[in-house]
Amino acid sequence: MPGRRASGRAASATVDAMRRSFWAWGWEELLPAGAARQALAAQVAGALGQAMPEPKPLPTLGRAIAGISRASVAPPQSIAALCDTSPEARLRHAYGRAYPDLVRGFACDFAAAPDFVCLPRTEEDVARALDACAANDIAVTPYGGGTSVVGGVEGGGRGRPACALDLARLSSVLEVDPVSRAARIQAGVLGPGLEAQLQPHGLTLRHFPQSFEFSTLGGWVATRAGGHFATLYTRIDDAIESVRLITPAGAWASRRFPASGAGPSADRLALGSEGVLGVITEAWVRVHPSPRHRASATVFFPDFLTGARAARAIAQSGLYPSNCRLLDPGEALLNGVGGEGAVLFVAFESADHPLQAWMSRALELLAEAGGTCPRGAVYRAHGEKTRGEESAKWRDAFFAAPYLQSALVSLGILADTFETACTWDKFEALHASVSSTVADALRRICGAGFVSCRLTHVYPDGPAPYFTMLAPARAGGELAQWGEIKAAASEAVLSAGGTITHHHAVGRTHRPWYDRERPEPFAAALRAAKRALDPTGILNPGVLFD
Amino acid sequence: MPGRRASGRAASATVDAMRRSFWAWGWEELLPAGAARQALAAQVAGALGQAMPEPKPLPTLGRAIAGISRASVAPPQSIAALCDTSPEARLRHAYGRAYPDLVRGFACDFAAAPDFVCLPRTEEDVARALDACAANDIAVTPYGGGTSVVGGVEGGGRGRPACALDLARLSSVLEVDPVSRAARIQAGVLGPGLEAQLQPHGLTLRHFPQSFEFSTLGGWVATRAGGHFATLYTRIDDAIESVRLITPAGAWASRRFPASGAGPSADRLALGSEGVLGVITEAWVRVHPSPRHRASATVFFPDFLTGARAARAIAQSGLYPSNCRLLDPGEALLNGVGGEGAVLFVAFESADHPLQAWMSRALELLAEAGGTCPRGAVYRAHGEKTRGEESAKWRDAFFAAPYLQSALVSLGILADTFETACTWDKFEALHASVSSTVADALRRICGAGFVSCRLTHVYPDGPAPYFTMLAPARAGGELAQWGEIKAAASEAVLSAGGTITHHHAVGRTHRPWYDRERPEPFAAALRAAKRALDPTGILNPGVLFD
Repeated sequence: MPGRRASGRAASATVDAMRRSFWAWGWEELLPAGAARQALAAQVAGALGQAMPEPKPLPTLGRAIAGISRASVAPPQSIAALCDTSPEARLRHAYGRAYPDLVRGFACDFAAAPDFVCLPRTEEDVARALDACAANDIAVTPYGGGTSVVGGVEGGGRGRPACALDLARLSSVLEVDPVSRAARIQAGVLGPGLEAQLQPHGLTLRHFPQSFEFSTLGGWVATRAGGHFATLYTRIDDAIESVRLITPAGAWASRRFPASGAGPSADRLALGSEGVLGVITEAWVRVHPSPRHRASATVFFPDFLTGARAARAIAQSGLYPSNCRLLDPGEALLNGVGGEGAVLFVAFESADHPLQAWMSRALELLAEAGGTCPRGAVYRAHGEKTRGEESAKWRDAFFAAPYLQSALVSLGILADTFETACTWDKFEALHASVSSTVADALRRICGAGFVSCRLTHVYPDGPAPYFTMLAPARAGGELAQWGEIKAAASEAVLSAGGTITHHHAVGRTHRPWYDRERPEPFAAALRAAKRALDPTGILNPGVLFD
Repeated sequence: MPGRRASGRAASATVDAMRRSFWAWGWEELLPAGAARQALAAQVAGALGQAMPEPKPLPTLGRAIAGISRASVAPPQSIAALCDTSPEARLRHAYGRAYPDLVRGFACDFAAAPDFVCLPRTEEDVARALDACAANDIAVTPYGGGTSVVGGVEGGGRGRPACALDLARLSSVLEVDPVSRAARIQAGVLGPGLEAQLQPHGLTLRHFPQSFEFSTLGGWVATRAGGHFATLYTRIDDAIESVRLITPAGAWASRRFPASGAGPSADRLALGSEGVLGVITEAWVRVHPSPRHRASATVFFPDFLTGARAARAIAQSGLYPSNCRLLDPGEALLNGVGGEGAVLFVAFESADHPLQAWMSRALELLAEAGGTCPRGAVYRAHGEKTRGEESAKWRDAFFAAPYLQSALVSLGILADTFETACTWDKFEALHASVSSTVADALRRICGAGFVSCRLTHVYPDGPAPYFTMLAPARAGGELAQWGEIKAAASEAVLSAGGTITHHHAVGRTHRPWYDRERPEPFAAALRAAKRALDPTGILNPGVLFD
């Protein structure tokens, strides 16, 4: 079962030898343990100015398996050969990797495990699984990499038989069109496998969410995932040429066009559908040649809001940097980059042209806005490494952060992130009210806490702010404490004019605020669409609507 | 009634003194008449190598009014005060400006006139009109500028009482947010009025479809209209921050965000909804400061396909020119620009930075692809005019083209355009098969004819080709001839892998091909959404689906 999953045709031997943690982020071997975990505990106690309880031992797979309850149903006969009913498979498909998932996983509480896991090999298998589950009133949760941070893949534990439909076997790049720069790719491929299969063609999707190593193309499409481009191609939405879904009402296959004006976009209804309308099986995506020119710079600002005004100038300049990420002083500290103030990473990349003119103008704008760039811009040709730069340190810290979160949770720390987007006119007030609301909530509910903010993506009309929060949790009370803090944060975001999510999706967690954010007639339209495609309501019930 | 409509607060006295033609494109005064029309007739006869019949006299409003049939219903009492039941109002709202509309208008056949025209002043009026029409089973066609070229506003003449809901009185820019560069604008405003109201703020939407002078923001959103930007912000879709619609089931108001990942986008379902889900009343749109720097160049290619490969290089370069329009030799000739071969206009504009680096690289790419640019690039600062340049001649010809089409129709010429988009890998074959299919059809059906092509927008993964066709029509047989040619062209587009429309919308004309292009489960979802919002099916019946 998928404790070990091939990361694609070119997966390295090292990776193949590693094993996914059954409860924590990523590879079991990369989770801080032993002395590293002890050192982290000491560091946290110091940072929070509080004595922390003795770390509990890490959970074992054996204990988790021993604790799992019996399945309520067996797989229907017609798909039995595609299904895995083992306790390990079931518990590995119980949760995503949100804070409550980590808390429950650490406690070996896998009550939300599905009754069985179905692993289709083909679209026909997917259709057969949907038919069988509809006939037997079994809820079906499409499952990609299992990295949801919003309860998007938590299909079991609700009194209705549940199947996790894992797309892992649909993981190939099927076609490459180098002329149009596009590729037809199956939904179940993980980020590294996708890039490894494109690489021989000199092409890359360049979609690098923090979950890259463990999330799938289908999951990105279903959740409108945000990637590494800070401007222009910020989310997977912009890469989609066409999508195929298998719905209980048949195959939904849009045609491949660079753009069409023929009615509302079918693809845009599939994007963000979070598994409630159908199972995404493949997509044509726009790809890029590998960049040949890169330019990057690290710019310092006295404070976050000054940096944000500078980021706005960049976002509105028409220069379209690939990176324009602003860290507040807390984020900079947390990630081991920068000094006293805020830090902005700006970078350009191109497969076509040198980037001096672009970067020079960006640095002018940033300097006019109060930034300093002591080391100037760095220009690199293809293949040159970025070691030693602040931005490289940041990148490493960025991809290590989910491991750190798991380790912190194991130490009794409430560690979570949330994100939004708002227009620039509302940003400063939103930042102030969300930061203070969350800081107050952490103090009130946990007795202490820390909140920081960065801008992950910037648009001409507004930024996507991303908040991190840390606080000491009360053993046994983590989920209640988190629920109260999450509600306070979400209320603050909504009342300040932010969206409940820019790229983390809705899932089950964001439902109360999504329901308020969504226009009511659109909700009625979406429910009607759902009924038309999924009349028995088997697809991911509870996500997006009831 | 709206024979004369204010083009916005800053409309000039000249424009106010002009009058919209009741049958032809645009201002009555600008339609070639008298000697100009005679000269055009001679020119066409020469170009087609055929003697043409003596031009019929232009139709008069009096004759049109005399011929219109009685309305089948009066406006419901609750909205009577908002309604105009005059024959002139009715016939002015009968058609868009497609070829069949011009033919019927020229013949004073206004059989498709609605029974009355409703002119709401507020959203409450819109809701009241929908309620009243639903209660009385009257079809409602939302009407913006009446420039549809796909039968999108032709609501009458189908045996069901029909109301044209004209948004002309909702024509204000309500709010401007200069920080986020966005504005809240009512749907009924025409292009010039919108720009005139933004201009005091130093801002511009820069959405310049060919219909700019006579089409509305609401119409652009409803039809996903294409504007003048050849890359990036090609269509109104990309300018939309949020939309308000009044549906029979209530107000649909999305919140204003730079981006949200909360479920499928409500705005993307409104975009392209062509009046079947609700009446668009306003939108927050992203605006730009007026450009301060411009760079433009005219590049010549030996033939169209060589030019298209060059346009692809530009589209895939990441340079994002504002203009990258390629005319084949026929288009160039027709518009009085260029010489023997194909002509490509490339231009950059920026409110932020000089454009030498951008244009230099673009000219390098174009030269590598076989282009010559004898006069080099022209760089201009804000306010400098473009007179004398080929691109300025093109722009003038572009906006004059619909007048020319009306005049040609009045001379018995079948003159029409159609457009598509396809991926680059399919483009050359599509161009060949569509061109030859249409040329054959014109010869077979009309005895002679001319077809030309340009690229209006270019994407990294494909172009939007736009075809123009001219042929001598048979008096009395125009609609049948056109129907046959349109079907041949549409079949050729679809079978070569193009979309039935990139920016002209579906309306009633493109339905047979749209129905085939659209994924069936998505059609089911859309129909279900429609039933949820418009249970009596009063909104624009026949558009997008039955």
